[in-house]
Amino acid sequence: MGGNSIGAIFRVTTWGESHGKALGAVIDGCPPRLKLSTEDIQRELDRRRPGQGLGSSPRQERDRVEILSGVFAGMTTGTPISLAIFNEDVDSKAYEELKDVFRPGHADFTYQKKYGIRDERGGGRASARETVARVAAGAVAKKILLQEKITIMAYSLELGGVRARKIDLNEISRNPWQCPDAAAAPKMRERIEEVRRQGDSLGGIVEILVRGCPIGLGEPVFDKLEADLAKALMSIGAVRGVEVGAGFRVAGMRGSEVNDPISRAGFQKNDAGGILGGISTGADIILRVAVKPIPSISLAQKTVDSSGRSVTLKIQGRHDVSAIPRINPVCEAMVAIVLVDHLMRQRTLDGG
Amino acid sequence: MGGNSIGAIFRVTTWGESHGKALGAVIDGCPPRLKLSTEDIQRELDRRRPGQGLGSSPRQERDRVEILSGVFAGMTTGTPISLAIFNEDVDSKAYEELKDVFRPGHADFTYQKKYGIRDERGGGRASARETVARVAAGAVAKKILLQEKITIMAYSLELGGVRARKIDLNEISRNPWQCPDAAAAPKMRERIEEVRRQGDSLGGIVEILVRGCPIGLGEPVFDKLEADLAKALMSIGAVRGVEVGAGFRVAGMRGSEVNDPISRAGFQKNDAGGILGGISTGADIILRVAVKPIPSISLAQKTVDSSGRSVTLKIQGRHDVSAIPRINPVCEAMVAIVLVDHLMRQRTLDGG
Amino acid sequence: MGGNSIGAIFRVTTWGESHGKALGAVIDGCPPRLKLSTEDIQRELDRRRPGQGLGSSPRQERDRVEILSGVFAGMTTGTPISLAIFNEDVDSKAYEELKDVFRPGHADFTYQKKYGIRDERGGGRASARETVARVAAGAVAKKILLQEKITIMAYSLELGGVRARKIDLNEISRNPWQCPDAAAAPKMRERIEEVRRQGDSLGGIVEILVRGCPIGLGEPVFDKLEADLAKALMSIGAVRGVEVGAGFRVAGMRGSEVNDPISRAGFQKNDAGGILGGISTGADIILRVAVKPIPSISLAQKTVDSSGRSVTLKIQGRHDVSAIPRINPVCEAMVAIVLVDHLMRQRTLDGG
Amino acid sequence: MGGNSIGAIFRVTTWGESHGKALGAVIDGCPPRLKLSTEDIQRELDRRRPGQGLGSSPRQERDRVEILSGVFAGMTTGTPISLAIFNEDVDSKAYEELKDVFRPGHADFTYQKKYGIRDERGGGRASARETVARVAAGAVAKKILLQEKITIMAYSLELGGVRARKIDLNEISRNPWQCPDAAAAPKMRERIEEVRRQGDSLGGIVEILVRGCPIGLGEPVFDKLEADLAKALMSIGAVRGVEVGAGFRVAGMRGSEVNDPISRAGFQKNDAGGILGGISTGADIILRVAVKPIPSISLAQKTVDSSGRSVTLKIQGRHDVSAIPRINPVCEAMVAIVLVDHLMRQRTLDGG
Repeated sequence: MGGNSIGAIFRVTTWGESHGKALGAVIDGCPPRLKLSTEDIQRELDRRRPGQGLGSSPRQERDRVEILSGVFAGMTTGTPISLAIFNEDVDSKAYEELKDVFRPGHADFTYQKKYGIRDERGGGRASARETVARVAAGAVAKKILLQEKITIMAYSLELGGVRARKIDLNEISRNPWQCPDAAAAPKMRERIEEVRRQGDSLGGIVEILVRGCPIGLGEPVFDKLEADLAKALMSIGAVRGVEVGAGFRVAGMRGSEVNDPISRAGFQKNDAGGILGGISTGADIILRVAVKPIPSISLAQKTVDSSGRSVTLKIQGRHDVSAIPRINPVCEAMVAIVLVDHLMRQRTLDGG
Repeated sequence: MGGNSIGAIFRVTTWGESHGKALGAVIDGCPPRLKLSTEDIQRELDRRRPGQGLGSSPRQERDRVEILSGVFAGMTTGTPISLAIFNEDVDSKAYEELKDVFRPGHADFTYQKKYGIRDERGGGRASARETVARVAAGAVAKKILLQEKITIMAYSLELGGVRARKIDLNEISRNPWQCPDAAAAPKMRERIEEVRRQGDSLGGIVEILVRGCPIGLGEPVFDKLEADLAKALMSIGAVRGVEVGAGFRVAGMRGSEVNDPISRAGFQKNDAGGILGGISTGADIILRVAVKPIPSISLAQKTVDSSGRSVTLKIQGRHDVSAIPRINPVCEAMVAIVLVDHLMRQRTLDGG
Repeated sequence: MGGNSIGAIFRVTTWGESHGKALGAVIDGCPPRLKLSTEDIQRELDRRRPGQGLGSSPRQERDRVEILSGVFAGMTTGTPISLAIFNEDVDSKAYEELKDVFRPGHADFTYQKKYGIRDERGGGRASARETVARVAAGAVAKKILLQEKITIMAYSLELGGVRARKIDLNEISRNPWQCPDAAAAPKMRERIEEVRRQGDSLGGIVEILVRGCPIGLGEPVFDKLEADLAKALMSIGAVRGVEVGAGFRVAGMRGSEVNDPISRAGFQKNDAGGILGGISTGADIILRVAVKPIPSISLAQKTVDSSGRSVTLKIQGRHDVSAIPRINPVCEAMVAIVLVDHLMRQRTLDGG
Repeated sequence: MGGNSIGAIFRVTTWGESHGKALGAVIDGCPPRLKLSTEDIQRELDRRRPGQGLGSSPRQERDRVEILSGVFAGMTTGTPISLAIFNEDVDSKAYEELKDVFRPGHADFTYQKKYGIRDERGGGRASARETVARVAAGAVAKKILLQEKITIMAYSLELGGVRARKIDLNEISRNPWQCPDAAAAPKMRERIEEVRRQGDSLGGIVEILVRGCPIGLGEPVFDKLEADLAKALMSIGAVRGVEVGAGFRVAGMRGSEVNDPISRAGFQKNDAGGILGGISTGADIILRVAVKPIPSISLAQKTVDSSGRSVTLKIQGRHDVSAIPRINPVCEAMVAIVLVDHLMRQRTLDGG
């Protein structure tokens, strides 16, 4: 009940602190006889490593995953898959002086008040490093989706106010910001460089595109597909908003504009974003999340310490300027976990 | 696993179809010795009745709630509270001719594909009428929150492109659109009248404000408070986007702008929307949802029937022009259920 | 979290008090397109009515079930099935004088201490009448099992010390005690008559036999099939022990006696009771439960009231002498619910 | 949904195979600020090590636990506690020749049929070694119970037909069989020696006594305290029956004998075993489980291999003669986990 599990059937539980011994995930409910290797997972972990985009955090995270259980002779066995990433190169000294300070935009204040204790080293459990376990578990989910020919791509739709004006999926891997618009990518770079020099950070928007999702995933009423997706995405620390299909644009639209006409060939447009009544339509699923700027900045900030004393804080060291694009594989992981879970839920109705 | 329950401790299960015998909710996990009467629930149901705002659906829903269990001598007993609203004045004839047609923007298509059967009368389980059970259960949650001096208000921030420019909470109950800006309210009215004449419908944005929430609600990592709120709100049929605090605005902001400075008196602004690291800060919780236009419009629409034949559809009868403001108490109900659930989750840590 | 739900996928939530307005169950996760009528459920309810066996409780329970949702055109739709049995012929006067007395063997004391309030009329939620909702939900589960050719029979293996020496399944419906041994049945009758005259009550043992269960149901480690069955059966108020296969006899046996040899034709005996390692073997599943005597007896008993005063209690009126055989369909219902749940869980692995 | 988690609030997920890299448990929902050290857990692990009782398995399991997360500065932080026991001294050669043989009394057959694959080395996930993770998690639960002055003792009531005639709790730690009757202990020894020479194995009965449990734990209807305890205990591989209080003896008793009279000083006897109506009474909780003989015996057994060929099997090597007494701390662990979970569930009602 501590909130560290997600999924009803394909159930992922994560654990671990930024500067603790290790981080990891246990997947319970993974189908047996799925080919799975360390490399399948490592590939995804490498995508969220520092050095992605222009930003790089001060820590050299190698993030080597180990499969501790649930895989035998290269295949899953149906028993829990335990994944661990042992922390290396941990230097908690920098956090020593911050240990009593509530960093603005971070969870220091709320963890301290909720639990009366916190592992302040590197943000403890509230560190963005927590997402390494999500990505590891998501890699297993993606492997399952691949069998079903379902693919997920997350890309940087907007970064620091620079918006991609076209979506060219081939372009995404060609620039370090994972921007789908070749024209916008260099502007994102300029924006990042400028803000880095100022010691500040940037937000943006990630769009997630799911292709090949079959019709019928999602459970009304509360476990609608978009509801579970919204929860999964909103559970990522930096995310402050989630939308599906036309999203917030529907506020200014009319019914005659929003409704997607249906022809014998299928839906004639896709403002629904691939989900109607909480159930997938078979069209592409389109989601967008708002990503807030990295809260750790080197500009001076006003805050208090745990004794209530006013403090002016300048966070030292190099930090990412934006959670984008390192957050992109995290978004994919969360979407993958939700989709596998609903795929398996849907199977319970088969043969009924 | 059919997705009709929400909440981990304060657990609400709803049931019922638009034109079936009844709709209802079972609440399991409600604390004992809470004063609860039919009137407490009826008051909330009346707020979502037709005739709210300018729109009114063709059906005269009286929506009388009955408490079938869990209350004795005017107080909850700790056993499940069963609430039922029996359907009256049900006329399914209008739906007879629609029974094989997939109405655009509705769940007809996806229900048919997922289940291979559907109760097509009035949209069956996918009808907006389903929310009557949410509001009934939410009324019980609100009663609990009231004891803790936590209040929730949902109001119409934007309707048909008309946006409230100021938030005057006293104004909300003074106009039928529940608009918090006296100047914007008449413009909303004009916009609704215009679009009604055209046989079309309108979307908008609802803002939800929670006051008095204590520090410490929310469970990292996956069950963050905003994640559970996002799921609860996104599970409402018409909702296509959810944001907390600065929401999608963070995409264009810098860290130095988004971070809320902390002083001895508390947070100096509230772009976090009352939640940091998934845990409530004690400040107001601020949420916004994008509401799509009512999909039932009298304008001609292209679609197909279940045999795949092309159909041009004009939906007869009077329909609401917008789900706003009738959706507002539904939003409040969902937020109330999530907050009570997290209040009770937090109690499990007390005395630990 | 109030403990009124069972099943992970085929999820049953029950509600209602003995002398309240109604009792009922909501089934979420029932597969669509299952033929289901009121009669399917009524038949099972009739099997647990008073007048079964020799005992009959003072109340004339007609127990007419209503299906309030989830069934359309005679078939389930995949949406929640809401079942209600409205209480008729409720006379709470007899309980008025008992309202402050803690009846020995009943839950009066513990409910009062746990909740600080209780509906004392007829035992409230703790009444054996609560099982009417279990049987109603179990009837739906049985209908699903029938499609899979899985049958469940519960019979009276022992009553008041009289034990069936042989198991003749045809005999069960021929005597009112549902005893599978024609020779033992009249002795059960004698024993019941004798004890009834004395104003006392009797315990016994119910055996439950499942035929046709496929290989592979049950989830290691904690959700072993026998573990979930044990919980489901032990959750019936009168049950004080549960065993599978050889059960408590294994305590005195050797490994060479307990192990079931396997031949090409299958298991050569069935001391495992159809379950190995928590997973069904395909052989008959055999369970037994110990049923305590009805706690309501007319003999004088020492107890206290809620003010702590000593009371000598004689419970008036006619009561069943034994929960057997009315508990038998309740046992079947619980086993049916667990089996359907595990059938559906197993389906999630198919196609994996 | 793979069945490897237990507990609703204090939630334990275990993972790992007998001859894999490691076994472990993740505890989610543990209250913060609990003092917890490796030694607290190691002490319990040592109690289930080989060499307990007379039997000792061929493998030298050192079972060193590591705490990988959730503890900071010697205290729990409220985040998931990840525990791992890395396997050492693993020799899978002995299992090579057994890899296609279905050992009678083991889960080889059912795992193969359910999953289509299994880690046959040492029984894989179905090995009794799986319980090491239960004991590790149970040690944390016991630490919490200790704060509440609740203690749990499991002891060997019966072994190989030799029954303890008296319960002297001080005697339990004085003999290697953990028999509470000094007179019965040497007879247990003789019985074990005799059966060991014969290459066979023995069953028995473990009794579990809980002292200091407060009134009010347990949730009617399905999550009765004895129901959750029955599930937890029946989930231990060797357990074939569970009873509470008078247990199966109630079958031959009358209501006037079973009902525990209540006086101002409390219950005058305890045939209820400390639970009434699913809720703890404040009296001692008394449970008993039937433990089957170790299925691995050196006597010849008939079975088949995975190709369906008949095989005569003699299992080589030294094996325990009985799961007792090594199973005793496992029983304690399961009871501890259930009690902590219900303690925390009960807290959700406080202040309501």
